[in-house]
Amino acid sequence: MHRTANRPVTVEAHRDKVRALLAPLAARIDTVPLGDALGRGLASDVLAPLDLPPFANSQMDGFAIRSAEVPDGGAELRVAAPVPAGAEPAELAPGTAAPIMTGAMIPAGADAVVPIELAVPDSFPAPGAPATVRLPAAPVGNYVRVAGSDIAAGETALAAGTFLGPGQLGLLAALGLSQVPVHAEPRVLLVTTGDEVVEPGSPLQPGKIYDANGTLLDSALRQAGLHVTRTGISADNPGELEELLRRHAPGVDLIVTTGGVSKGAYEVVRQALADHDVEFGPVAMQPGGPQGIGTFDGVPVLGFPGNPVSCLISFEMFLRPVLADLFGSPAPRTVIRARLAEALASPEAKHQVRRGTLGPDGTVRLEGGAGSHLMHALAHSNALVHVPAGTAALAGGDEVEVWIL
Amino acid sequence: MHRTANRPVTVEAHRDKVRALLAPLAARIDTVPLGDALGRGLASDVLAPLDLPPFANSQMDGFAIRSAEVPDGGAELRVAAPVPAGAEPAELAPGTAAPIMTGAMIPAGADAVVPIELAVPDSFPAPGAPATVRLPAAPVGNYVRVAGSDIAAGETALAAGTFLGPGQLGLLAALGLSQVPVHAEPRVLLVTTGDEVVEPGSPLQPGKIYDANGTLLDSALRQAGLHVTRTGISADNPGELEELLRRHAPGVDLIVTTGGVSKGAYEVVRQALADHDVEFGPVAMQPGGPQGIGTFDGVPVLGFPGNPVSCLISFEMFLRPVLADLFGSPAPRTVIRARLAEALASPEAKHQVRRGTLGPDGTVRLEGGAGSHLMHALAHSNALVHVPAGTAALAGGDEVEVWIL
Repeated sequence: MHRTANRPVTVEAHRDKVRALLAPLAARIDTVPLGDALGRGLASDVLAPLDLPPFANSQMDGFAIRSAEVPDGGAELRVAAPVPAGAEPAELAPGTAAPIMTGAMIPAGADAVVPIELAVPDSFPAPGAPATVRLPAAPVGNYVRVAGSDIAAGETALAAGTFLGPGQLGLLAALGLSQVPVHAEPRVLLVTTGDEVVEPGSPLQPGKIYDANGTLLDSALRQAGLHVTRTGISADNPGELEELLRRHAPGVDLIVTTGGVSKGAYEVVRQALADHDVEFGPVAMQPGGPQGIGTFDGVPVLGFPGNPVSCLISFEMFLRPVLADLFGSPAPRTVIRARLAEALASPEAKHQVRRGTLGPDGTVRLEGGAGSHLMHALAHSNALVHVPAGTAALAGGDEVEVWIL
Repeated sequence: MHRTANRPVTVEAHRDKVRALLAPLAARIDTVPLGDALGRGLASDVLAPLDLPPFANSQMDGFAIRSAEVPDGGAELRVAAPVPAGAEPAELAPGTAAPIMTGAMIPAGADAVVPIELAVPDSFPAPGAPATVRLPAAPVGNYVRVAGSDIAAGETALAAGTFLGPGQLGLLAALGLSQVPVHAEPRVLLVTTGDEVVEPGSPLQPGKIYDANGTLLDSALRQAGLHVTRTGISADNPGELEELLRRHAPGVDLIVTTGGVSKGAYEVVRQALADHDVEFGPVAMQPGGPQGIGTFDGVPVLGFPGNPVSCLISFEMFLRPVLADLFGSPAPRTVIRARLAEALASPEAKHQVRRGTLGPDGTVRLEGGAGSHLMHALAHSNALVHVPAGTAALAGGDEVEVWIL
């Protein structure tokens, strides 16, 4: 079932294939404590089980009053018992003003708060001592946070697919929720291949290079919330690679390989997967054109090319957006428009992805050339710059789509 | 030594104080395996120990030639032994062309590569069979990646303070480095306070609210790479809070509290720290004005206000940028200019920080009002919108500074 497509498919069409391949994984849901949900994707809509705030409360330290009792010229009121935050106050007696702290419940009968700064005297009397205070008039609702003004019970607090960062988890906590339904984190097997690559830290013989892909993709996959199993570097022996994949496939949800997917004479991934339902062919993208996609013993396989920059671009263009879309995690890349600091050329038939540095002035400077081996330039980039197919050249100052890394 | 400043300090001045308070922590350095360095900050410059690429190699599958042997009209050459990636090839015999794979070492004598697509025939002959190939001319260096063209040995690969993401770790791996010097991750004690707050998941009595701050800041601090110890919620009892801090202080590098720093009658953090070297006072910022800063038994303390949005803004404005600056981790927020989708008002004397959603068209929509209790709006934001002190109003279409969350 080994198929080779020779006509390049578009970036969008290949991404759709990746989505279709991984979509079944989205059905797996875990329910986890709030503290374990950071960086996960919400698996179902969460409705607010209560109003936020749960009760009308004061936005300021001040005096809770019945606004109708204070005419435009102000009024002198007896000071009632103070209302600290967390207490359930008694009804406000007519003719009194209750010292009230920020966040404390507005007493029944009260309908406005006068900030302490506007009171005469402008400090709270000692508790228990009889006292009066002169207050200016205040409209109904003055400095009162109405129950449900942040979110009302029954409203959708967060939609399924939301990435759970500090703000989202803070909202769930505010709603009293301690358990969260999240998408299960996919388990991925990462296999870097090549007779030429050796592990960092070992001696380097002539003709060999250090394996950057393993570290690069391991980091990117972990940052995206996946559980990564590494196999170490697989030599260019198709039989051994097939055996290695067979051994690990039952324990993972996805296999990612690097290298060996091109049209050379020694393409170990193509050869190892020759009897499996995996398709190899070019995507109209630079770098990262050669791509493999399919299944191995029923497990989804993505075959990324062997150059480090191509690997990262493959991950960013195909796997990461699909994970974000299907699982709500990782967070989608922020997409903006920026102006090119310089001209560029691009192969018109391909979607080119350049690395760049986005400045606070809204211009993006290219880092390094189009070359897929330029790790140093990649390491100094904070953005991907997109030149869609159909464009052969852009001038400095032209607007481009930029993904912020 | 309890001091209260009444004149607001600027955002910048307060951030400088936070930086001075935490700067000594930057001296603590760990050396960790590459795989444990993801998300950490590099503690010293890393120089390239070797050239990248380490040797001249082919950028394409094709034929390595001596370019001077192929005139403009092309030439028929004998096919030499193929050069796979990872091998150290023999010198290229005059009058021959060596099949060479992408990434394979250019044989001595060869100085250019002709892509396989331009060869006649345009496929590699079976290994061992005598064969010839017709190739067009190619200039010196054609499709050759020169040794050191990515980075040369001795150059600075990454500067101290660099955030280590996939691209940066990939570069270190490509350089063969397996250990990385990183800043030690600060240990932080997080104490949320207030008689009114209860843990999510427990029943809610009238006047009480769920603790959002604990989850919000715990998540934000962990996302920023800190080791967080939670104490649970501290009630409004200054003696108990002081005792709790005393117990935990020896094991942490930083204490962060929430709530109890304002000018109300029940300010537990102010009261608990009354005998310590902690200063309380307003910062000219909205929200998040009331701030405490100092030391407790020699341990740095930051007292954030009690509203959830104020807490997150305090973290984003003061702690996160200082951590990024001192430790190289977390990554600094991406800062861009965007156009406001709508008008806004701001207290002229303060730096206002609004929450917003940045669209791909470069406009930013405000989420919720200025209110510091609006968790739902915060949870739907992806950006902070800055209105510096001195500005009372902005119109739709005006440019603002935006930090991407």
